[in-house]
Amino acid sequence: MLIHSATQLLTLAGGPQRGSQLGSLGILEGGAVLIRDGRIAEVGPTAELRAAYRAEPALDASGRVVMPGFIDPHTHLVWAGDRAAEFELRRQGKTYLEILAGGGGILSTVRATRAASPEELLAQTRARAAAMLRFGTTTAEAKTGYGLETTAELAQLEALLRLDEEGPLEVVPTFLGAHAIAPEYAGNPQGYTGLICAEMLPAVRAWWQQHASGRPLPFVDVFCETGAFSLEQSRAILTTARALGFPLKIHADEFDNLGGAGLAAELGAVSADHLVKTSPDEIRALARSETAAVALPCTPFGLAEAHYTPAQAFLAEGGLLAIATDLNPGTAWCESMQFAIALACRYLRLTPAQAIAAATINAAAALGLQARLGSLEPGKQADLLILSVPDYRHLGYRFGGNLVERVIKRGEVVV
Amino acid sequence: MLIHSATQLLTLAGGPQRGSQLGSLGILEGGAVLIRDGRIAEVGPTAELRAAYRAEPALDASGRVVMPGFIDPHTHLVWAGDRAAEFELRRQGKTYLEILAGGGGILSTVRATRAASPEELLAQTRARAAAMLRFGTTTAEAKTGYGLETTAELAQLEALLRLDEEGPLEVVPTFLGAHAIAPEYAGNPQGYTGLICAEMLPAVRAWWQQHASGRPLPFVDVFCETGAFSLEQSRAILTTARALGFPLKIHADEFDNLGGAGLAAELGAVSADHLVKTSPDEIRALARSETAAVALPCTPFGLAEAHYTPAQAFLAEGGLLAIATDLNPGTAWCESMQFAIALACRYLRLTPAQAIAAATINAAAALGLQARLGSLEPGKQADLLILSVPDYRHLGYRFGGNLVERVIKRGEVVV
Repeated sequence: MLIHSATQLLTLAGGPQRGSQLGSLGILEGGAVLIRDGRIAEVGPTAELRAAYRAEPALDASGRVVMPGFIDPHTHLVWAGDRAAEFELRRQGKTYLEILAGGGGILSTVRATRAASPEELLAQTRARAAAMLRFGTTTAEAKTGYGLETTAELAQLEALLRLDEEGPLEVVPTFLGAHAIAPEYAGNPQGYTGLICAEMLPAVRAWWQQHASGRPLPFVDVFCETGAFSLEQSRAILTTARALGFPLKIHADEFDNLGGAGLAAELGAVSADHLVKTSPDEIRALARSETAAVALPCTPFGLAEAHYTPAQAFLAEGGLLAIATDLNPGTAWCESMQFAIALACRYLRLTPAQAIAAATINAAAALGLQARLGSLEPGKQADLLILSVPDYRHLGYRFGGNLVERVIKRGEVVV
Repeated sequence: MLIHSATQLLTLAGGPQRGSQLGSLGILEGGAVLIRDGRIAEVGPTAELRAAYRAEPALDASGRVVMPGFIDPHTHLVWAGDRAAEFELRRQGKTYLEILAGGGGILSTVRATRAASPEELLAQTRARAAAMLRFGTTTAEAKTGYGLETTAELAQLEALLRLDEEGPLEVVPTFLGAHAIAPEYAGNPQGYTGLICAEMLPAVRAWWQQHASGRPLPFVDVFCETGAFSLEQSRAILTTARALGFPLKIHADEFDNLGGAGLAAELGAVSADHLVKTSPDEIRALARSETAAVALPCTPFGLAEAHYTPAQAFLAEGGLLAIATDLNPGTAWCESMQFAIALACRYLRLTPAQAIAAATINAAAALGLQARLGSLEPGKQADLLILSVPDYRHLGYRFGGNLVERVIKRGEVVV
């Protein structure tokens, strides 16, 4: 297939974009892209490619932007139920502690998810995966973490693999047994940490080798935050995981600074995510490490909080910045990377070009997948969007809607 | 047609909702609605209506919310071009004055709109009208104001009437010749005010009687703000309009308080809109008048500003509150009332139920159309939404997406 005559073809060529390099879109005006066997075969001027491939089925993108599919590098895609009633209670002035006391909060999602049948869990999750795709996300990281016991966590991993096999959304799995202290260990976070290290992580590894032996191990992630896992508990979990061969991620500094960002850099995590309360010293350390920073602007927005990731400081230090939705039922039920871009332009003060790079090639890097995804370059997987607009800057400028007209995943038109 | 088995049918019955009454959704669980000749014929329990109308074509809404279509009571729907480049310049740190000096700002939209052919203007506007409809808006107020000379303003009015005739989005027109000082009158706002009063308003009235004689006169609106029209100029325009028989609206206190809210109450305007910098005394005066307050939360969001309409204070004084998108190319290119609701829940601190009432029956009242639109009651126009969710509170709770599954306008399924 030859997609041609794009008013702007954004290649995002040249690899992940650190610091002040962020925002190089590699714009080809009047560009065309040739897709063969699910991969990008060639990118170039429309006249050249149309002359060279006259018999190729053609898709006219005139008046439109063609760009890589969005990669959402941080989601909690798999859960059952909702917390709409809790949202209303908060609007009525109830505090989070009052809601917790009434059985709400994350543990209500854990109860609903544990109680759901595998089919029900998949059916509810599929609706979200379909929405992500309609809004242009072609690959999404997705975490377990609403099981908090070995069996339920493995069921969520299985759901993630099933979703990925079903497609067309590509799912990159993460094990987040350390999302919250399991209700069975209330008041005993150390006990639950021990369970994760001694039982869950080995079980995940064994299960994975049996059920997904051809695939690299999933990420292991920890919620390092007051009320969840302390820095030392986070370190124990992540070092155990690393010794078992898992690649690492971390939730750090969303509400409170426990030192998670520094731990991520020290342990060589692929990414550290949230980073709202990170100190200038840790920003600098993280920026100079190989660990990507994943800003999640939908979360402060969802909570109507005023503080966002200090993205400018991180970029000034030369760091690798990505953005994600943090799709989850508590703080940010948002499937749209377009909306994450609109927030990033306003509250992280990114330009549209910077936000787009943070949502494509840099988001791929935050999953270690920059060699296969995130740009339109020969040899890469053919995951593309055709936008209904002629200028990439409509992303960010416009908000609340959907500018994605078509979605192409592995060379197939899927939306 | 019989729409039945709605998990929640929101009737919004009982008329506009002032002050602490805001948020009465009139929920019928397992409700059904019978539509005949484009109007609501009956509303009641599914069992009763199915038994009574066995032969009626049926639409199953089980697992879903059925509710009135959104009414967007403040938009600048008709313009040509975009200001995406200006958005990028602002993200790069350019000030609004620097952008104005470079030919940007509202006058760049005036140039593009004046230069567009009627067909081009309609084509660009239709795309927005279609997006509004997909996101659930069944009726939208829409203003002129990018012509700023008699001929161009009349061309915009004509475009609004054409769009309304084309449907399915219903368009309620407003004449906003007083949107900005026309470039031909730069430095001479008094001269342009004189032109509006002496030439434009009589011309609009004469044109309307010739081209739309069966319809009530459009609203006349003024942008009462530093840099646009002073309080006295606004008063001159609105009193002239009132004497000619036009119903009134006003843009007041978006950036600066010139006293426009008090003027609206004094002159019996149907609504006063924006109201970010309104003083407590004016809030009280407005709340006790017949004038509705229209909050436009997409505008501070679009500008990444921290201050929103003091909706709680206005409600505490018993006022009639509506919300709207303010769809426009400068500060808020947003077609989605769902997103306005999400913002209202966070930054006006409304509950989802309050925001929904502000976006339906109260929005109808802000257009003087509450007798025909805004609720599901026998005799009202059959403008309905079927949401893909079982609980109305998903509106507000979830953001950045689209929960509207079907749109019914005047009894016809249009989305």
